[in-house]
Amino acid sequence: MPLVGVIMGSSSDEAVVAETVSVLDQMGIENEVTVASAHRTPEKVMEYVTTARERGIEVLIAAAGGSAGLPGVAASWTTLPVIGIPLPSSDLNGVDALYAIAQMPPGIPVACVAVGSWGARNAAFLAAQILGIKHDNIRAAYDDYRQGLKNR
Amino acid sequence: MPLVGVIMGSSSDEAVVAETVSVLDQMGIENEVTVASAHRTPEKVMEYVTTARERGIEVLIAAAGGSAGLPGVAASWTTLPVIGIPLPSSDLNGVDALYAIAQMPPGIPVACVAVGSWGARNAAFLAAQILGIKHDNIRAAYDDYRQGLKNR
Amino acid sequence: MPLVGVIMGSSSDEAVVAETVSVLDQMGIENEVTVASAHRTPEKVMEYVTTARERGIEVLIAAAGGSAGLPGVAASWTTLPVIGIPLPSSDLNGVDALYAIAQMPPGIPVACVAVGSWGARNAAFLAAQILGIKHDNIRAAYDDYRQGLKNR
Amino acid sequence: MPLVGVIMGSSSDEAVVAETVSVLDQMGIENEVTVASAHRTPEKVMEYVTTARERGIEVLIAAAGGSAGLPGVAASWTTLPVIGIPLPSSDLNGVDALYAIAQMPPGIPVACVAVGSWGARNAAFLAAQILGIKHDNIRAAYDDYRQGLKNR
Amino acid sequence: MPLVGVIMGSSSDEAVVAETVSVLDQMGIENEVTVASAHRTPEKVMEYVTTARERGIEVLIAAAGGSAGLPGVAASWTTLPVIGIPLPSSDLNGVDALYAIAQMPPGIPVACVAVGSWGARNAAFLAAQILGIKHDNIRAAYDDYRQGLKNR
Amino acid sequence: MPLVGVIMGSSSDEAVVAETVSVLDQMGIENEVTVASAHRTPEKVMEYVTTARERGIEVLIAAAGGSAGLPGVAASWTTLPVIGIPLPSSDLNGVDALYAIAQMPPGIPVACVAVGSWGARNAAFLAAQILGIKHDNIRAAYDDYRQGLKNR
Amino acid sequence: MPLVGVIMGSSSDEAVVAETVSVLDQMGIENEVTVASAHRTPEKVMEYVTTARERGIEVLIAAAGGSAGLPGVAASWTTLPVIGIPLPSSDLNGVDALYAIAQMPPGIPVACVAVGSWGARNAAFLAAQILGIKHDNIRAAYDDYRQGLKNR
Amino acid sequence: MPLVGVIMGSSSDEAVVAETVSVLDQMGIENEVTVASAHRTPEKVMEYVTTARERGIEVLIAAAGGSAGLPGVAASWTTLPVIGIPLPSSDLNGVDALYAIAQMPPGIPVACVAVGSWGARNAAFLAAQILGIKHDNIRAAYDDYRQGLKNR
Repeated sequence: MPLVGVIMGSSSDEAVVAETVSVLDQMGIENEVTVASAHRTPEKVMEYVTTARERGIEVLIAAAGGSAGLPGVAASWTTLPVIGIPLPSSDLNGVDALYAIAQMPPGIPVACVAVGSWGARNAAFLAAQILGIKHDNIRAAYDDYRQGLKNR
Repeated sequence: MPLVGVIMGSSSDEAVVAETVSVLDQMGIENEVTVASAHRTPEKVMEYVTTARERGIEVLIAAAGGSAGLPGVAASWTTLPVIGIPLPSSDLNGVDALYAIAQMPPGIPVACVAVGSWGARNAAFLAAQILGIKHDNIRAAYDDYRQGLKNR
Repeated sequence: MPLVGVIMGSSSDEAVVAETVSVLDQMGIENEVTVASAHRTPEKVMEYVTTARERGIEVLIAAAGGSAGLPGVAASWTTLPVIGIPLPSSDLNGVDALYAIAQMPPGIPVACVAVGSWGARNAAFLAAQILGIKHDNIRAAYDDYRQGLKNR
Repeated sequence: MPLVGVIMGSSSDEAVVAETVSVLDQMGIENEVTVASAHRTPEKVMEYVTTARERGIEVLIAAAGGSAGLPGVAASWTTLPVIGIPLPSSDLNGVDALYAIAQMPPGIPVACVAVGSWGARNAAFLAAQILGIKHDNIRAAYDDYRQGLKNR
Repeated sequence: MPLVGVIMGSSSDEAVVAETVSVLDQMGIENEVTVASAHRTPEKVMEYVTTARERGIEVLIAAAGGSAGLPGVAASWTTLPVIGIPLPSSDLNGVDALYAIAQMPPGIPVACVAVGSWGARNAAFLAAQILGIKHDNIRAAYDDYRQGLKNR
Repeated sequence: MPLVGVIMGSSSDEAVVAETVSVLDQMGIENEVTVASAHRTPEKVMEYVTTARERGIEVLIAAAGGSAGLPGVAASWTTLPVIGIPLPSSDLNGVDALYAIAQMPPGIPVACVAVGSWGARNAAFLAAQILGIKHDNIRAAYDDYRQGLKNR
Repeated sequence: MPLVGVIMGSSSDEAVVAETVSVLDQMGIENEVTVASAHRTPEKVMEYVTTARERGIEVLIAAAGGSAGLPGVAASWTTLPVIGIPLPSSDLNGVDALYAIAQMPPGIPVACVAVGSWGARNAAFLAAQILGIKHDNIRAAYDDYRQGLKNR
Repeated sequence: MPLVGVIMGSSSDEAVVAETVSVLDQMGIENEVTVASAHRTPEKVMEYVTTARERGIEVLIAAAGGSAGLPGVAASWTTLPVIGIPLPSSDLNGVDALYAIAQMPPGIPVACVAVGSWGARNAAFLAAQILGIKHDNIRAAYDDYRQGLKNR
């Protein structure tokens, strides 16, 4: 049963989201990946997000570029923590998505990570840190990864 | 019966939205004003927007600051034209909202106007231009306003 | 008889404007395309725009980069709605054009869409939304497009 | 026993951090507040952070302006999740801190929230969401808060 | 007979334009001041600018904020040199006007000076430098001013 | 005898400065090109600039990237008008040079044009406009160029 | 005999430069303060800087806003280390000066510190660090200051 | 015995740091290069930096991109002067690193140089200027280099 649901706004974001999935797998975190757009398919986002907790999801990760509404819209439909990855897919190269994801209004936070590939990987590491407060095996996996960094 | 529905994300945006309403009134455009937040009350936005057309609304105006999800979320629930006003209410002073509102993904546009008070008034004038292609009295009102600018 | 007039500041903008035309065609909106520069050929812009309404044009779309004066200049000569597409053709990569198009002074709005290719397509979709309040076939075409997004 | 440790880089940040504490209290989350600077007192940060988990801390919140090294330095010394609040305390008004906190390198994420007062409150709400995956009472408190937003 | 024509987009720009006039007077340069908006009163700008040379004007100075179309529109109607002053009158605080005025397309330059009060004074000094290549008294006045700076 | 002196900060700027020279030639304006760096060879700049007027130079054009001190340093040593071209040669892509060249302090203006290739050509056109107030043949050449734009 | 020469571009920068002097005094570093503008009084800067080393100066500190040419011009006339303080004195609020001071071309560095008051103090601390590699009493003074930070 | 210690945050920064080393060698400055990350290997940074002075290091150079914590963290562990090179390695292209490195809080300065390759070389030249106040041969080497620039 997946603990992390990864949503991307467009199938053209697949390459960068693959980096998120790769780190989640490396941390031993079961996950599922969905394409759903905050603006093009809002019902799909709403349905996916509002049923996420009952399906066992504990953390959501949403990747989007430009206006990057997806992480905030996901957060609006759930009380689960949502991690947002700003993508450099528009002509403004990600600074638009960074502002849109970080500058959420009081009450409905999104945990914003770095733009692009750095953030795609860090979203998964942040999910591991968050899940690690509850799941010892995930905590151990991330602790091992961090220990490994020291020995390189 | 209102032709224009004005939505603001927070009641703290009332002062600037009052400028929009004042211009709509000056153009003789019936309007209604609602407080509904894309992130805090997404159902309210969804319900308001999805029923807007059947209630006779022809143009939506949405004002929001920071992540400024409201105009895009409104656009996601309707095929009516949506005008977005970026508000300088966060510490980034409106450049965040400007990017969030202008940089909508292909398929779901928002008509972005200027940040703050300039945009609040221009949202109403843009609504008048749009409605003017169908409603002769509104076209005449905006034409008169423009004629009046020349004589000042 | 075209309902939408598309103006580009320079013939070097043709590739991106072709995306606008392609969406207008897809929406079944008759259109015409003109090259006219706000700064190099202001008379041509003035003549094109001031006669647009009598030739049946209901919405103008203007694409420009850098100082991006074209959408605002078009708006100065007409009371028709003008949609502006900021192009990333200068060394500042479109942020200059975005500011120039969005930040119009009170009274003379331009409906700003996203920078570059995203905006080129969204200008046409926004024209469809606007024309849809008057023309049922265009409203139906855009509604169909949006319905199609859900089924993908 | 506090679940959340709040660190600020300078005692001049106390007013904004008080907003974080106020929301943590409202969510019924025990917390402790410390002044420790990544650059002026790095040992103090290291000692505080490396002993945080054994003292029962599950989430760290770090607020800093300018170079805003504190959240990243905290993250470097622990595998607990770290939430970073960018403060507008330098002459660049928070955009510097936003970039510094969001743009962490792969492996060591920080969960960045909004600049200033919005972020100060959202850091606490994000902590509530994170702790809510493990602590039912905190989940319930945040769920109640969100439910309350709907009824306003 | 005025050698310099100063145009401002709005009478609300009078205070900063007064600084331009004050320096022109100090340099002994006859000047005239006009309020004409590129967007609200384009005919007035066109008429003023197209007749400027025959009335003896040798340099135009145009001050505008936001989209700041005025300097570029003035340049489009004349082959006289046009100096543009970006004003910080919008919520973006002048960076919008700076980009709009500097980023003119090839063929139709505007001489951009600093944002706000610095630029308002420098527009007049630049006019003095330009006129100084033809008018010995103006050259002498500016040379004296510069000599005076050394002795302060 | 050259009327325009073109200075570039580094011989690596030759390609873009060639565009300036090409337009000067097209306008029939005699010119000379020099490599001299404000920071690496300040004496050379000082000597070149302080003797420019006596050698018949009436307008200086200076191109530089990054800190872009050259136009301002040139202006500090002469009372001739100086046109500055911001080059996108640093990793900040020209926005640094644009600010450095436009934001001159009161008393010592530089006439800033667009970043990069657009500005390289416009510096020459602006020189033609300036020289045109004194030299009828240059005025005629630029007038012809502008007339030609209309017939394209 | 002063070891540090502090130059400011304008006497209006005195308040912030006083913070630099205060820290230099606290570190026991003899210093002298001069007003000299890179653009208004270039000879004065040249003379001051070229004679600095022979007068015993070992580090120069230059504060300037806007185009902020002063630190770079100082560096062009000496091989002493130059520390630059970007001041938020223009309408762009210091980001212009930050870019101008940091983005020096290869060969002629300036050591850039933070914008405004933070940088004014840090310029003096940086001078203490630099002088500390040669002067034991200054090294001791800065070491004491740092030790004192830990005990606060 | 090395006088300069060069630290880079990641081995992927080797190409640009090679430019620093090349200039240090050219100036005859003994140096050593280390890979150590402020965020991934903070103990390694702490150990390297805290022992630097006793090993004879007089100046530290730290290169980092994105959050760019390395120069500031190095500065937090030593009272030696630290030069920071902002790298354009993230999707924000170096402006993030520039802000992070320049905007250090009062008391703990970092000497920030230009983004990327320009800065990589200038960090070494700045080290030569700093060491030149104590080491005559280094001063002579840099003086020779500067003399050589004049003769090119």
